[in-house]
Amino acid sequence: MATIAILGAGIMATALTFPLTENGHRVHLVGTHLDQDIIDSIQKTGVHPNLELKVNDGVTAYQLEDADKAFAGADVAMSGVNSFGVHFAGKHLARLVKPGMKVLSITKGMEAEEDGTLHMLPDVLKGFFDPELVEQVTWSAIVGPSIAGEVAVHHDTCVVFCGDDQESLDYLADLFRTDYYHVWTSTDFLGHEIGAATKNIYAFAAGLGQGLLIKEGKEDDKYVRYNYNAAVFAQGQKELRQFMVLLGGVPETADGLGGVGDMFVTSMGGRNVRAGEYVGQGTPFSEVRDNLMKGVTLEGVNAIRVIGGALEPLTERGVISAEDFPLCRYLYDIIENDAPLDMPWDKFFGGEK
Amino acid sequence: MATIAILGAGIMATALTFPLTENGHRVHLVGTHLDQDIIDSIQKTGVHPNLELKVNDGVTAYQLEDADKAFAGADVAMSGVNSFGVHFAGKHLARLVKPGMKVLSITKGMEAEEDGTLHMLPDVLKGFFDPELVEQVTWSAIVGPSIAGEVAVHHDTCVVFCGDDQESLDYLADLFRTDYYHVWTSTDFLGHEIGAATKNIYAFAAGLGQGLLIKEGKEDDKYVRYNYNAAVFAQGQKELRQFMVLLGGVPETADGLGGVGDMFVTSMGGRNVRAGEYVGQGTPFSEVRDNLMKGVTLEGVNAIRVIGGALEPLTERGVISAEDFPLCRYLYDIIENDAPLDMPWDKFFGGEK
Repeated sequence: MATIAILGAGIMATALTFPLTENGHRVHLVGTHLDQDIIDSIQKTGVHPNLELKVNDGVTAYQLEDADKAFAGADVAMSGVNSFGVHFAGKHLARLVKPGMKVLSITKGMEAEEDGTLHMLPDVLKGFFDPELVEQVTWSAIVGPSIAGEVAVHHDTCVVFCGDDQESLDYLADLFRTDYYHVWTSTDFLGHEIGAATKNIYAFAAGLGQGLLIKEGKEDDKYVRYNYNAAVFAQGQKELRQFMVLLGGVPETADGLGGVGDMFVTSMGGRNVRAGEYVGQGTPFSEVRDNLMKGVTLEGVNAIRVIGGALEPLTERGVISAEDFPLCRYLYDIIENDAPLDMPWDKFFGGEK
Repeated sequence: MATIAILGAGIMATALTFPLTENGHRVHLVGTHLDQDIIDSIQKTGVHPNLELKVNDGVTAYQLEDADKAFAGADVAMSGVNSFGVHFAGKHLARLVKPGMKVLSITKGMEAEEDGTLHMLPDVLKGFFDPELVEQVTWSAIVGPSIAGEVAVHHDTCVVFCGDDQESLDYLADLFRTDYYHVWTSTDFLGHEIGAATKNIYAFAAGLGQGLLIKEGKEDDKYVRYNYNAAVFAQGQKELRQFMVLLGGVPETADGLGGVGDMFVTSMGGRNVRAGEYVGQGTPFSEVRDNLMKGVTLEGVNAIRVIGGALEPLTERGVISAEDFPLCRYLYDIIENDAPLDMPWDKFFGGEK
């Protein structure tokens, strides 16, 4: 039996406690400063209020002030926050993680330097650690098409555990594998993080066609806009693959679970898709951000801001051409400049010809 | 102004008359022996009964017995039938097509020899032609994510015109391009036909997860089975790419419109997905075929039968390994042997590890 301590008690972190506890492991779930009500609820009733499910026996919930107790002696230390919490997680985990632990992250996204150089979030996490400690633990992450609630209700889910150290990956995969939670492993750590970060960009784009349909009053018509969505998906997939090559992932990682599979599931719905729908209906993005979806976590929008924002400096430095990433550039124009819906079809797929 | 003669008056053939006529071209739409009522309806009322739309002026509908008149002097001769009609189309077009015409096919799929060797349908069409005539015309096809009705109601659609002759492709693309029908061209004829044929295999698979959800009575639940569908989609995309390499297409054609884009749109719904849903609900496929969907054209099932059926001889000949194409092999087992729903997850993505 292993002990897994998780910082962050959001729905994904909590969903992952199901396979772990069903395999007989002990989970210490530590809320952030934003999770106080969640921890309170789990401590009192066992129910995660956002997931709307009772967690299994074997999960112990801790408020942040008890984090030291929760992480003491853990075999696995998980970063369970989203991309907005990566600095928070880095600061706390740098103190909570001890030599010999296996660090496992579900925090996805990238950060950019001013010149456009992009870093995957596990590396951002590492930046908070004492350099000696960085070497005394192993680093891994979970990626792949995985809606948290579906994991929690035991629906088949296929994911990839990626990292530098195959032995740790095998150990971690073994902790999680059940008859519904299917785990593959890969040492293409960077490539899988690139896929996990960039697929969120295209989730926002996946809502635009549906928004247009709503604007036209045609959402219940016989003929909808699957052709539109498919073309956007295809261009998104092309760009995801190009990001993979540009940033140093293994090109094949753009295929399969960590690339196109994750992009597929992210395009099926959720907050980023809904934000795209509003824009498709004709709402300026600033209005979505400041009113309609004020305070809602939009990881896709954040990915567009960070990664899309890096494209201009990368172009100026000659790393990419001005014709590269036309969809990502257009999405950036939507969220930064309130660009209206006017899909640049003729720039897609290398330019219409 | 060009004259385009189309053999076959199904919904896709008819949908394509919209961009053509809106560009000022003349279309002669010739029904097959199965299309008599359609032609009758268009001749009397202008309405295509399955598409439920009135065709534009500029479309003239012909019964099969008037095909010679319809094709006389045409600039473009189109095969507008589905894969089940390829022999029919071959026999008739071999007579109707004259030197100098541009042959353009929307007939997608493959045919297999006994040893598993697969042929794309434009080559099957060619086989009916006098060898001299084969050289006196040019050969092209339309592929990409395109639901017919959406084209007909002017919803943005991105497609690829593929063929051997770039000049013909440019000419044909120019006939069709409008502000909603976006056309790219490619001389990877074989690769695009492989994508168009194999994507249908995975459309059937796209229905299985939804069927399982219905069987469980959970289709209106908060948590559905997008993770399931995404993993199936990802494995399907991996196999589509492997088919591309195996059969001699350009690997990159598995990306973009002709590969993943077309697979995406085909997975969103339609008859093949519905057939998969029945199997997901626990109905043996033979029951779907012989009762529930008797007489319904299932191109995906046909693709599984032909291409899936070729895998065993190809394995015996050592062309592929027994571990290759686990999803396609399983789908073949469903439609040929009434295999129940039991997704072979552990064989996907090179084997769970």
